[in-house]
Amino acid sequence: MAAKEFVIGVDLGGTNLLAAVVEPEKGEILGQAKLKTRAELGAQVVTERVAQAITQAMEKAGVKRKRILGVGVGVPGPMHPDTGVVVCCPNLGPTWENLPFAENLQKLVDLPVTLDNDVNVGAVGEHTYGAGRGTRDMLAIFVGTGIGGGLILDGKLRSGFRDAAAEVGHVVLLADGPLCGCGQRGHAEALASRTAMEREIRAALEAGRPSILPHLLAQAGRDPADPGPIGSGLIGDAYEAGDPVVVEAVERAQYYLGLLVASCVNLLDPEMVVLGGGVLERMGEPYLEPVRRVAQQHYVQKADAERVRVVRAELGDYAGALGAAVLAKRRLG
Amino acid sequence: MAAKEFVIGVDLGGTNLLAAVVEPEKGEILGQAKLKTRAELGAQVVTERVAQAITQAMEKAGVKRKRILGVGVGVPGPMHPDTGVVVCCPNLGPTWENLPFAENLQKLVDLPVTLDNDVNVGAVGEHTYGAGRGTRDMLAIFVGTGIGGGLILDGKLRSGFRDAAAEVGHVVLLADGPLCGCGQRGHAEALASRTAMEREIRAALEAGRPSILPHLLAQAGRDPADPGPIGSGLIGDAYEAGDPVVVEAVERAQYYLGLLVASCVNLLDPEMVVLGGGVLERMGEPYLEPVRRVAQQHYVQKADAERVRVVRAELGDYAGALGAAVLAKRRLG
Repeated sequence: MAAKEFVIGVDLGGTNLLAAVVEPEKGEILGQAKLKTRAELGAQVVTERVAQAITQAMEKAGVKRKRILGVGVGVPGPMHPDTGVVVCCPNLGPTWENLPFAENLQKLVDLPVTLDNDVNVGAVGEHTYGAGRGTRDMLAIFVGTGIGGGLILDGKLRSGFRDAAAEVGHVVLLADGPLCGCGQRGHAEALASRTAMEREIRAALEAGRPSILPHLLAQAGRDPADPGPIGSGLIGDAYEAGDPVVVEAVERAQYYLGLLVASCVNLLDPEMVVLGGGVLERMGEPYLEPVRRVAQQHYVQKADAERVRVVRAELGDYAGALGAAVLAKRRLG
Repeated sequence: MAAKEFVIGVDLGGTNLLAAVVEPEKGEILGQAKLKTRAELGAQVVTERVAQAITQAMEKAGVKRKRILGVGVGVPGPMHPDTGVVVCCPNLGPTWENLPFAENLQKLVDLPVTLDNDVNVGAVGEHTYGAGRGTRDMLAIFVGTGIGGGLILDGKLRSGFRDAAAEVGHVVLLADGPLCGCGQRGHAEALASRTAMEREIRAALEAGRPSILPHLLAQAGRDPADPGPIGSGLIGDAYEAGDPVVVEAVERAQYYLGLLVASCVNLLDPEMVVLGGGVLERMGEPYLEPVRRVAQQHYVQKADAERVRVVRAELGDYAGALGAAVLAKRRLG
């Protein structure tokens, strides 16, 4: 019998899903397949599409099923890692409520399946193969539509008592501040996410402040009067052009992200904070500098503030699939 | 040779110090001695007074030195548990900066000495013998002049990468809010400590709002025009009498304490949050109810919010000495 030396990691997002055959020692991707999620078709179809991507990835890698230890999947919502049941996935729709997804996928692919949430697996990916390699304690913060996080303590993913740890987006930063997607006020997600920036930018445009953004939106073939999510790309372009509306919104978000980092550091004192997600990827290192400065100002222990490294994520879109592969190796090995 | 079956725990505070001979299995105190700290006399004298209290406690317990495993001390400031060097203790004065306190005390008492900070040892005390018995993950928050905390994860005290974890008083709750003792704005300590309540109360009295507090202060033989710290006792009395100024200040502090609990729960998802300190002890269970309500509102995972227990500390003034004794047993055993 051949050794089961490979694992499959799947990053299941609201728009796309990515499956990768991974050699777990080095984190090398031997083959991958990306499909549209098609969430609107419901959980059954999406599960079949995940299975299809897994099969395609194995074909591209030239790796047979018998050499695969199992499949790890990062899902965009709360779930129970022990049972493989998804509690809910707002991005995927109502058919995902209390869904035994691991069991369903297992039947389709004939391989053991383990789940965790997408930001947790992203944190595991960065810890194992990315920015956090070699650290003992690491907090990952992913900034996008929302703000999610994953916490590695003593080298292990910390799930929490109710599998609800590392919800960094819902740390309170401004009591009675703007309304958060969760229904409460003043959380980090309502202040430092891309969505929060977009809210500020839209309000400024509606108030008639001059900005190049309507021009950029029109150039991109979008309706400046009703742009929907503006996106990290255009925000980055406008910021780099010095657009005052966008610069202000970005600086506010950086300030609050700095406060979030400080609160987490004062509470956990980790070795490293890894910042990732679309905004950080688009804007790069310059985005981090003010975040670090604000954070360090608020550290209560200042003496060796620089020892707590605040760095960019390294794996980009692959953090999720790679981290899911690591969890498959650990849990199914 | 007799078995070294006992340990000594010392709680070194800015005003008083308490030494206790402890039977570590049950956390039974066999003998104790309390002395004024006399911080103004400097570190050398205070160290001698700690040694004196230890000797007195052993005499009261009728336990000889050869049956003592070692001494644990909770000190009111940052220190390095590995070296026993105190970084600083603002409450004790400048002679404590970079002081090899464990070594100095060890010479005086001829017993091994281990240190940790006062809130960490309080958390260990509550976890081992108090409200947190049997929990795996527990956060303790002590509300007094400041706000301190201690974090137990997987049954162990989490010191952090720089021995700076669990600084719950410096979690940001209101960006750009009132100035904190650490020099930054909007931290929990500046919003939910007894000092923060007193600041609000004094401002209201200075603004001429009617209150029974000046009357209560005068009754207590204090100058209502310059009361200094008002204290948990009088705040509790005025609150229970329905004094509007004090009720408002207490409710604000409860609100912010609830937000602090929520932020910590969303980040760590612990099994239990233990709330202690002078204000909580004076005002009891009624103080907790609004704190729990606000916290639960801000939990992002609401389904089983009650499973995270938010409870009062049980050991009162003994949490520190008992927790220090536990650390002595663990580290020196």
